[in-house]
Amino acid sequence: MMKPVAVRNIPRAEQRVIDDLGQMGVATVHEAQGRVGLMAPYMRPVYSGVRLAGSAVTILAQPGDNWMVHVAIELCKPGDVLVCGITADSTDGYFGDLLASSCLARGIKALIIDAGVRDVRDLKEMGFPVWSKAIHAKGTVKETLGCVNVPIVCAGALVTPGDVIVADDDGVCVVQRQSAAVVRDKAKAREDAEVAKRVKLQAGEMGLDLYKMRERLQQAGLVYVDSLDDLK
Amino acid sequence: MMKPVAVRNIPRAEQRVIDDLGQMGVATVHEAQGRVGLMAPYMRPVYSGVRLAGSAVTILAQPGDNWMVHVAIELCKPGDVLVCGITADSTDGYFGDLLASSCLARGIKALIIDAGVRDVRDLKEMGFPVWSKAIHAKGTVKETLGCVNVPIVCAGALVTPGDVIVADDDGVCVVQRQSAAVVRDKAKAREDAEVAKRVKLQAGEMGLDLYKMRERLQQAGLVYVDSLDDLK
Amino acid sequence: MMKPVAVRNIPRAEQRVIDDLGQMGVATVHEAQGRVGLMAPYMRPVYSGVRLAGSAVTILAQPGDNWMVHVAIELCKPGDVLVCGITADSTDGYFGDLLASSCLARGIKALIIDAGVRDVRDLKEMGFPVWSKAIHAKGTVKETLGCVNVPIVCAGALVTPGDVIVADDDGVCVVQRQSAAVVRDKAKAREDAEVAKRVKLQAGEMGLDLYKMRERLQQAGLVYVDSLDDLK
Amino acid sequence: MMKPVAVRNIPRAEQRVIDDLGQMGVATVHEAQGRVGLMAPYMRPVYSGVRLAGSAVTILAQPGDNWMVHVAIELCKPGDVLVCGITADSTDGYFGDLLASSCLARGIKALIIDAGVRDVRDLKEMGFPVWSKAIHAKGTVKETLGCVNVPIVCAGALVTPGDVIVADDDGVCVVQRQSAAVVRDKAKAREDAEVAKRVKLQAGEMGLDLYKMRERLQQAGLVYVDSLDDLK
Amino acid sequence: MMKPVAVRNIPRAEQRVIDDLGQMGVATVHEAQGRVGLMAPYMRPVYSGVRLAGSAVTILAQPGDNWMVHVAIELCKPGDVLVCGITADSTDGYFGDLLASSCLARGIKALIIDAGVRDVRDLKEMGFPVWSKAIHAKGTVKETLGCVNVPIVCAGALVTPGDVIVADDDGVCVVQRQSAAVVRDKAKAREDAEVAKRVKLQAGEMGLDLYKMRERLQQAGLVYVDSLDDLK
Amino acid sequence: MMKPVAVRNIPRAEQRVIDDLGQMGVATVHEAQGRVGLMAPYMRPVYSGVRLAGSAVTILAQPGDNWMVHVAIELCKPGDVLVCGITADSTDGYFGDLLASSCLARGIKALIIDAGVRDVRDLKEMGFPVWSKAIHAKGTVKETLGCVNVPIVCAGALVTPGDVIVADDDGVCVVQRQSAAVVRDKAKAREDAEVAKRVKLQAGEMGLDLYKMRERLQQAGLVYVDSLDDLK
Repeated sequence: MMKPVAVRNIPRAEQRVIDDLGQMGVATVHEAQGRVGLMAPYMRPVYSGVRLAGSAVTILAQPGDNWMVHVAIELCKPGDVLVCGITADSTDGYFGDLLASSCLARGIKALIIDAGVRDVRDLKEMGFPVWSKAIHAKGTVKETLGCVNVPIVCAGALVTPGDVIVADDDGVCVVQRQSAAVVRDKAKAREDAEVAKRVKLQAGEMGLDLYKMRERLQQAGLVYVDSLDDLK
Repeated sequence: MMKPVAVRNIPRAEQRVIDDLGQMGVATVHEAQGRVGLMAPYMRPVYSGVRLAGSAVTILAQPGDNWMVHVAIELCKPGDVLVCGITADSTDGYFGDLLASSCLARGIKALIIDAGVRDVRDLKEMGFPVWSKAIHAKGTVKETLGCVNVPIVCAGALVTPGDVIVADDDGVCVVQRQSAAVVRDKAKAREDAEVAKRVKLQAGEMGLDLYKMRERLQQAGLVYVDSLDDLK
Repeated sequence: MMKPVAVRNIPRAEQRVIDDLGQMGVATVHEAQGRVGLMAPYMRPVYSGVRLAGSAVTILAQPGDNWMVHVAIELCKPGDVLVCGITADSTDGYFGDLLASSCLARGIKALIIDAGVRDVRDLKEMGFPVWSKAIHAKGTVKETLGCVNVPIVCAGALVTPGDVIVADDDGVCVVQRQSAAVVRDKAKAREDAEVAKRVKLQAGEMGLDLYKMRERLQQAGLVYVDSLDDLK
Repeated sequence: MMKPVAVRNIPRAEQRVIDDLGQMGVATVHEAQGRVGLMAPYMRPVYSGVRLAGSAVTILAQPGDNWMVHVAIELCKPGDVLVCGITADSTDGYFGDLLASSCLARGIKALIIDAGVRDVRDLKEMGFPVWSKAIHAKGTVKETLGCVNVPIVCAGALVTPGDVIVADDDGVCVVQRQSAAVVRDKAKAREDAEVAKRVKLQAGEMGLDLYKMRERLQQAGLVYVDSLDDLK
Repeated sequence: MMKPVAVRNIPRAEQRVIDDLGQMGVATVHEAQGRVGLMAPYMRPVYSGVRLAGSAVTILAQPGDNWMVHVAIELCKPGDVLVCGITADSTDGYFGDLLASSCLARGIKALIIDAGVRDVRDLKEMGFPVWSKAIHAKGTVKETLGCVNVPIVCAGALVTPGDVIVADDDGVCVVQRQSAAVVRDKAKAREDAEVAKRVKLQAGEMGLDLYKMRERLQQAGLVYVDSLDDLK
Repeated sequence: MMKPVAVRNIPRAEQRVIDDLGQMGVATVHEAQGRVGLMAPYMRPVYSGVRLAGSAVTILAQPGDNWMVHVAIELCKPGDVLVCGITADSTDGYFGDLLASSCLARGIKALIIDAGVRDVRDLKEMGFPVWSKAIHAKGTVKETLGCVNVPIVCAGALVTPGDVIVADDDGVCVVQRQSAAVVRDKAKAREDAEVAKRVKLQAGEMGLDLYKMRERLQQAGLVYVDSLDDLK
């Protein structure tokens, strides 16, 4: 079996950078870092309306086995986000109200898991946000070891411990820890630019003009005709 | 590549017919027109509780490329509904808050797209309804042309520009423009008939009696037994 | 074709046991009965926040044909839950507001269906809970017989008429009628034990200590290291 | 957890009946028994061209855990077919060349599994046929008990130990042991009738005439027109 | 219900054009007509190695009901291809050896169906090629009418009766009848150009040079570095 | 957009180690390295019967855009394996006979791609093996840059340039370059051990005895009963 290891200490990005990224949301951050680092679209929030960022504490778990989640919780600091990949496809319910109680007590901000969770009504009432592949009551065992705080793949994205996880209703994005400040700056600039654009668009200015697309469309060969009959 | 064309003018159904269809909802309209024209069940509203109808302005877009959406917005009239098919499977986020701002400024009523959208929290706050295959923050490029206002296939349904799109929490239905008035009349008649049925059913009358099914069931060979043991 | 039969009378579990199971929810009940009897994770509530239990009146229906639902409604008693399996994959809308009106008039508590339903806005407004595989406006015919109150497979779970169905936001669980009282007792004991655990976890006690996992983790070979660099 | 049990002895259908069913194939047998008992269409043969039947020795296994397969093999008799359901969705590789060697040594005819298998090149070379949901090299553990020879659900079908499993390139069908002889007789009659039909169809007789459909089509309201233009 | 109609006569493309298209295969034809008209990638041949083209005789069928296939066969001419869309998702086995016998007797070249088929071993032995969404033994009924030779959507592609269907191991492509000759010419030109390219590529010439990509890559901003370390 | 970069030189594992890994196959190698590094089960060979290993030259491509494949081919050495991840879900046909001609001329051994390919009949005839998510004739454009020889995620597995890719009919496994020799040794030892086991199993020895499972099963609580009736 894989060498089971739990890493106690991980580097984290600057708290201020993390907080800023959590304000801006997934779409903006994803654009700002060059359209990489997104998890697959099947990762959905268990309840909507939450936007947050935190440092990734990673878990590599076995199918139907949530043992390592318990190990990982102890290694978290307040503000961390648990990110759990599985070594195989699984929709089992790895996480429920008891684990969420423990997470809240430790100041953990959220769970991102490429599998299922359960007790979702409780999770919403407790205010513990989760992004998951499935919701399912199926329980898990605690029989086979995995790893904590090693690089993992979660929902198609590489996550290195300490990376910044940004999540909202649009999905989940991974920002490499080393790039976090730069990405934050670019995302901020992008957001500022969008404010001005939004005002113009709301006033009825065409995107074709705002983005100066007309000439490029013509060069690319777009033909305007008056009616569908003109095509025949 | 396909001949890229944008058609400026499309015929539209009578506004009154469109409005009536928007009152009646997808299930009723779909029944009234003979159970055709439904999009696939994976088309879901980004937020629930909306029921509407409008004239289809169609877009044929390339995978991961939303250029033609910009072209289409300019060609819409107030009350239109954008309907976007893609030439390949895609869950990318073709549409977000800026495009929605532009749509609202133009009086566009909704977007139907066989792909993903993003900024869904903003879409809900702005009140711009979207039915889509996915929600995903993944951005798109503007590099390859498609078409606007040509007949397309969207989520398994043929959409000709100017067809009436009816959408609610049950999905999306396409009504051919030429049949819209007839379908409206049939849907209205169906709805009226259902009112009387509902009263009877609420009063406890059995559907078996209301729909006179007992004789047909017997002819078809249904056997009633008192208990499962009688089958052995 | 299969021998079409409708069984009038089915045994039911004790009402008190059913009510107790409905209080405890799917995850707890599923655990208490040894992690069996869950339906597949694609079974989702049409609207969230409902938790209930009732006796299963089973339906085996043909693809795109809801005739047997009408037959089944007549055979229900107040408090029953309709459970509908299909002989093939289907996402058609087998059930809508008229059938729901009839169900409410008969005191039926819910529908569980391995296919689609429609009129979901009405279902929510009327307060008739449904767990289904899909939401789709596609209508069905009434042409081919099936069965009522025979053992069926629904979403991967075996359901014998009179089994107790427990459903909430986590999914749907089937409790065999004969085991219902025992499962209820075990679930109650489990729930009581969880209260104490929750208090400790909320106070910050580690799950590793509460569940005495540290020794087992060590025996299984988990190695703690201080940093990722120690692995190289 | 579920009560882990292995049942040593199971009833089996008469060998002659089993052999006959194995000659006729899945589509015919499925029709003959009233179109019930089919497994889901995702169950595919690892290699094509095999048609067989055998008595089901059932396995209920945990996700990612093939321990009970070992237990089941010992309880098989020559001519049996292993049928393995999993308590959760899984595509892991539960079975490979070593287990197949063991099966062949025991005279086991095939494996039907609602999960994945591996070493598929070896399986083909050894001539051990498998129908599975997936092919995947992912290994499994031997940590958590399940059951052998209890009723299970496999790929949507209920399988009671001793039922006759019929499998070929069209999929997998379960025939209840008690009905096996009757189903065999009906399937044989059906097959005989098809021979005559095939000759007529090959000679160019229309199915519309052979099955006397013309009148029913007319009654049902089918309208023939000469060209599509006649519809406008 | 939809107005059930069967259209007796359809226009067809010139036989020589159809034959030429059948020589060139799906990828080439699809490119030549501007990358439109492809069916979804889930459409797979029941057995591989066949490449063909023919005129589409279209069928719109109901879920689990193959009645209209019988109607359509009578309306085919030698060389036609049956193309069957379903009004809902279905994996049922609409077509087997008897229908294939009838098709072969009529000179029908193939079946394209957005659902399942069965008796696949027989289909291969008889040499009747089929492209389908699924293989499944599940039978269908003959209870509800649909249409023959009306425009349909099949696996995401619009098919008008008389369009040319091109199919091989890469999938299925629809060529509009009116464009068939033009598409054939473009496809031929494309094929000729590819012969020369293939020779150069086989001789080791780089695609970057053959397609003159180096300058465009540089303009687009591609940066070459000597090693991954240069990126840090 | 992401910073588009192509890395010219990558480290590779020792050729002898690569060759050895290619002999042993995916299941064995995956076990030997602790059950990590497998790609998702949807990655299937375009034609079966091939087993190989090579050094990964990685490609990160955009949806519907195969430009970077051309860039990557030039950077390969004989014996390399192209591994292509996409920044979004795609089933488009990124690769066909012309690219395969170029690959063969360069001595490239195979393509692993988390998307579609086309011209599959040609690929088989030419003897260029491909593992892909889909087969689809849909063409791609050459408009947007990606990267070559950066770490990527492909079908759920992290691939660093120079890692050893092992592929056969069971799927695709990634062996980290640094661990390749150790994994090879463990895989060899595993294979040797299996030879002895296979002989014993073929001779009829039970796995329960060979793996000494009987005591553990008893300790875990497995209960043997003589018949299903004993459970009631």
